[in-house]
Amino acid sequence: MAKVLVSMNAFKGSISTKAATDAVALAFEGAGFQVEKVYLADGGDGTTDVAAALGGRVEFVSTFDPLMHPIEAPVVWLGQTAVIEMARASGWALITAEERNPMLTTTWGTGLLVKHAVEHGADRIILGVGGSATVDGGLGMLAALGFSITDEAGNASWRGGEGLSRLARVVASSPMKQTRLVVASDVTNPLLGLTGAAPVFGPQKGATPDMVTLLEKGLERLADITLQMRGVRLHDMPGAGAAGGVGGAAVAWLGGHLEPGAELFMDLENFDARAVGCTVLVTGEGSIDAQTVYGKAPVRVAQRFRKVSPEGLTVAIAGAVRDRAQVREAGIDVFVTTLDRPMSEREAMENGLALLTQAAAELAHLLSLKP
Amino acid sequence: MAKVLVSMNAFKGSISTKAATDAVALAFEGAGFQVEKVYLADGGDGTTDVAAALGGRVEFVSTFDPLMHPIEAPVVWLGQTAVIEMARASGWALITAEERNPMLTTTWGTGLLVKHAVEHGADRIILGVGGSATVDGGLGMLAALGFSITDEAGNASWRGGEGLSRLARVVASSPMKQTRLVVASDVTNPLLGLTGAAPVFGPQKGATPDMVTLLEKGLERLADITLQMRGVRLHDMPGAGAAGGVGGAAVAWLGGHLEPGAELFMDLENFDARAVGCTVLVTGEGSIDAQTVYGKAPVRVAQRFRKVSPEGLTVAIAGAVRDRAQVREAGIDVFVTTLDRPMSEREAMENGLALLTQAAAELAHLLSLKP
Repeated sequence: MAKVLVSMNAFKGSISTKAATDAVALAFEGAGFQVEKVYLADGGDGTTDVAAALGGRVEFVSTFDPLMHPIEAPVVWLGQTAVIEMARASGWALITAEERNPMLTTTWGTGLLVKHAVEHGADRIILGVGGSATVDGGLGMLAALGFSITDEAGNASWRGGEGLSRLARVVASSPMKQTRLVVASDVTNPLLGLTGAAPVFGPQKGATPDMVTLLEKGLERLADITLQMRGVRLHDMPGAGAAGGVGGAAVAWLGGHLEPGAELFMDLENFDARAVGCTVLVTGEGSIDAQTVYGKAPVRVAQRFRKVSPEGLTVAIAGAVRDRAQVREAGIDVFVTTLDRPMSEREAMENGLALLTQAAAELAHLLSLKP
Repeated sequence: MAKVLVSMNAFKGSISTKAATDAVALAFEGAGFQVEKVYLADGGDGTTDVAAALGGRVEFVSTFDPLMHPIEAPVVWLGQTAVIEMARASGWALITAEERNPMLTTTWGTGLLVKHAVEHGADRIILGVGGSATVDGGLGMLAALGFSITDEAGNASWRGGEGLSRLARVVASSPMKQTRLVVASDVTNPLLGLTGAAPVFGPQKGATPDMVTLLEKGLERLADITLQMRGVRLHDMPGAGAAGGVGGAAVAWLGGHLEPGAELFMDLENFDARAVGCTVLVTGEGSIDAQTVYGKAPVRVAQRFRKVSPEGLTVAIAGAVRDRAQVREAGIDVFVTTLDRPMSEREAMENGLALLTQAAAELAHLLSLKP
C-alpha cells in the first residue's frame, strides 16, 4: 500500500492542527496505508502546541496579557531551542472584542517570555508572532527586555499606541546575550504605508480610523529613530510590519531575523526526508479560498511536497472550499469537503472532528480502491 | 484512460435523472474518461422523461388529473412500446397538499392513457406507478377502460375511496386486446394488512386514520370480489398494493405483470452490455440513507454493476449522505458529497446542478491522477 504524508492545518475554532493531523492519519492507517505525520505551525495560534507535540518540554511562565493583567504563558523547549507564541501572551484572543484597543495593548508580556528564555539558556528562540492584539511597534517587548523608552520629558513611553505617539528616545540594552532570535511569520507587510501594520492590521485589532492615523505617525517616528540609531530602515522592509511592528523591532534592535513560519517548522520536523517515498499528501484546513494561496500552511506544504515528490498527489480536506481554480494552480490537486449534508457553519464547526474523520476515511477508502 | 459508467438518479426537487447523468458524464469526459451513460428510471417521477431521452416519441394525450380536472399527459413511444407514467396523470404532485384526499382521488386519468396506448397499437405498455395520489384499488383505471363498477343500487361506484367503500359489483370488459401490460414498480407491499396500501401509503396521500380504516375495508371488499371472479388472491400478493392497488388490479383484471422498475429500464438500455469494460460506476441521488438500501435506484444499479464488474469501483455522489455503513454494505463503495461549504438545504437544492458538476469534476480529476 502507498505511503501517505498527512499534514493538516487547524480548522479555526473547531480542530487544532494536531487533532486534525492525528484524525486524518488514523483514518489512513485504518485503510492500510503507511502514514507520516507532519504537524503544521506557522507562528500563529497553536505554534506552542505543535512544539509540545514534537516532544517539547512545556514550561509555564508568569507574564502579562495585552492589557497588563497577569497570566501564565508557555515557553516550549526543544533542546536548547525555546518556542514562544506571541498569541499566548499578547494575543488577540486573550481579550474581549470590547477591550481591543491598540492604543493600550502592549507586547510587554511577549518581551517577558523572551527574557525568560534568554535567562534560562536558550541558544535559539523561535518567536511565533501570529494572532497578536498589538500595534505598538514592539516597544512593550523591548521595554520588558530592559530598553529605556521615553517621551520628551523622559517619562516611560512604551505602552501601546499611546506610548508610540509620545515616543522621543530609545536607549538599547543588550538583552539577547548568546541567543539567536528567529521570528516565525508568514506576513510580508512593511512597517509603514498603505500595506503597513497600522492600516492593514490595526482595524482588526480594534483601531478606529483616527487611531490608524495616530499609530501610523507613531510607527513612522519609531522607524526614523531606528534608522538613525541602528542604521536599519524598517519603513519598507518586508515583514517589519508583522505583529504590529514586532517583526521590525526584533530585526533592528534584537539582532533577530525573520523566517517564513511554515517553512521553519517543516524544517524542524525534517519534512523533506519524511516526504520521500510518499505518493500522496493530505493537507487542509477549515476554509480554503484565494487567501490560502498567500502563504498559508496548506499551500506551503503542498509546494514543498511537490519539490520532493513531483509525481505525488496532493489532496486538501476542508469544511469549505472556494476559488478552487486559483488554489489548484498554487499546488493543491484535489479538494474534498467534510460536510455530509446541508448544515449551518455553526453545526459544521461543532461536529468538525467527526466530519473530518469521516471525510478522511472516505478518501482513504477511495484511494485504496482506486482502479 | 479507464471507462466509466454514469447512471445518476434524480436529485428530488433539484435535478432530473437526465440532467444529473449528463452533467456527471460531461465532467468525466472533460477529465479524459470514456463514458457510458445509463439513465435511471424506476416507474416513478421522471420515467417518461427518461423514455424520451432514450429517443422515445412523446405524444401528449388529453386526460384527467386525480380530481378529474382535464390535463394533458405524455405517452412515450419506444417503437411499439408505450411508456406511461402514472405520476403525470394521477400524481401526488399534480394537486395541492390541501386537495390530497384519497376518498376522492382517482386513477381514471391513468386508465385513459392506457386505453389510448392500446387503441394506438402498443404491443407493450410499461406503466410506471410511482408518485400516485390514489388509494382506489385501481377502480378508476378499470372504469376508464370500460369496466362496469357499481354499488348495490347499480350506480357507478368507481371514484376514489368513496367508490371503493360502496363497491358491490365489477363487470370486466376486455380492453387490452393484444397489448401486454407491464407494471414498473419497486414496491412490494401487498394490498391488505399492516403493510398494505391503505396504512402504508394512505397517510402520505392525505388519508386520516378514519379514512385508512375505510380504505382498508373497501380494498378488502375488492380483493374478495377479485378472488371470487378472477381466482386471483390480491390480499397478500407482493406488489398488489403498489399505487394504492393499481398493481393488483393490473395483474388480476388486465393480465398484467409486475416488474421491478429500475431493472426493467436497465434492461431497456442494455445495461449489462454497456457496463462491460467499465472500471468505475458513478451513481447517486439527492439524499442517500438507509431508505436507499430498500430498492432505490442507486443501490439497484450498484448491485447490477457488481455482477457485471466484480472488481469495479462504485462511487455515489449525493447532496446528503447518512447511514453510510448500511449503504456501503448494499453495494456503494465510496460516497462523495456535493456541498462545498456550510449552506441550507434550500441553497443546496437551488445550486444543485452547479454543485453536482463541481463534485463530479473533482472526483474525475482525482480518479484521473496517479497514484
